[in-house]
Amino acid sequence: MKSLSSLEQLAEALRRLPGVGPKSALRMTYHLLQHDREGAEQIGKAMLNALNMVHNCQSCNTFTENEICDTCADTGRDLSLLCVVESPSDQLMIEQTMTFKGLYFVLMGRLSPLDGIGPQDIHLEKLIQRATDGAVKEVVLATNFNNEGEATAHYISETLKARGLNVSRLARGVPVGGELEYVDPGTIARAMLDRRVT
Amino acid sequence: MKSLSSLEQLAEALRRLPGVGPKSALRMTYHLLQHDREGAEQIGKAMLNALNMVHNCQSCNTFTENEICDTCADTGRDLSLLCVVESPSDQLMIEQTMTFKGLYFVLMGRLSPLDGIGPQDIHLEKLIQRATDGAVKEVVLATNFNNEGEATAHYISETLKARGLNVSRLARGVPVGGELEYVDPGTIARAMLDRRVT
Repeated sequence: MKSLSSLEQLAEALRRLPGVGPKSALRMTYHLLQHDREGAEQIGKAMLNALNMVHNCQSCNTFTENEICDTCADTGRDLSLLCVVESPSDQLMIEQTMTFKGLYFVLMGRLSPLDGIGPQDIHLEKLIQRATDGAVKEVVLATNFNNEGEATAHYISETLKARGLNVSRLARGVPVGGELEYVDPGTIARAMLDRRVT
Repeated sequence: MKSLSSLEQLAEALRRLPGVGPKSALRMTYHLLQHDREGAEQIGKAMLNALNMVHNCQSCNTFTENEICDTCADTGRDLSLLCVVESPSDQLMIEQTMTFKGLYFVLMGRLSPLDGIGPQDIHLEKLIQRATDGAVKEVVLATNFNNEGEATAHYISETLKARGLNVSRLARGVPVGGELEYVDPGTIARAMLDRRVT
């Protein structure tokens, strides 16, 4: 059997990127080697450097280069509120709304039994420890509103309520700017059940 | 100004991959750092290794780790035929048809004045030198049949014919399995003009 050339090894390695198949990996390899060697060097070095520098925040589990991330280290935060999100991107989206002044816990995933992702993969032990530190009064579940996100929220909710914590979930309903004619019936049904007195 | 973290540097670097925007780059970064650190190391190392090992074949300009690539070093090839392609993938497609026994020249690009890609970027000097080695009797142009590929073929054709070489182009026509109802009029027009006596 012929061993892979450096070029084939690179194409093979690039397939480990999410969303990159064999054709894209080869296209990327050709592009970098012919037209952007500087970019290739930048990627290679940044990759190895990030592996070396980045790890998980001891408090909220997000990515950081320090023991504790900047958000957790911020003394102006409300320690009684803990918002649980699936990923750092979700945390960023919530931060941008400027409606939440508490702290976060980042699961770095969501329950998905079909993909073999169970409670141990979403750092549930770490979350329980974090949520039962005595300061946290309410845990806001902000996982996604798809099947896996809902299942994750349900599982965490049961686990934390059993430990006497107050658990809430982001409201569901018609999105801002939504026109009823174009909103799916499930969303309208939910909005009807959760209707609020004005 | 805050300097970029290792994680941000990696996301920034991944944007140099063709077809990867800021959102994908961030998704790739999170995925690798949380779920596939081994893959990240593989990519980083393969990238730097390929940069070190891979360069262009002195004869046909394709990628190789040696001075001359395996195809050019193959003594069973017909030295009188030279097929000009845009990329190594195109060469591979032609090889798979097993209809061509000559050698190749890989442009590693195509003329595209709008993108600032001129004759010097597609190694035209190297091609002229290669095609006028005395052994080559016919140059087969197999660039793509889109605007840039056609312009590239035309330009190369004029250049090589001025030096007394025979130049041909892959046939255009209705694709195998094509039904006239669904083939575009331009292709049918071309197939009509190029019709062959049977």
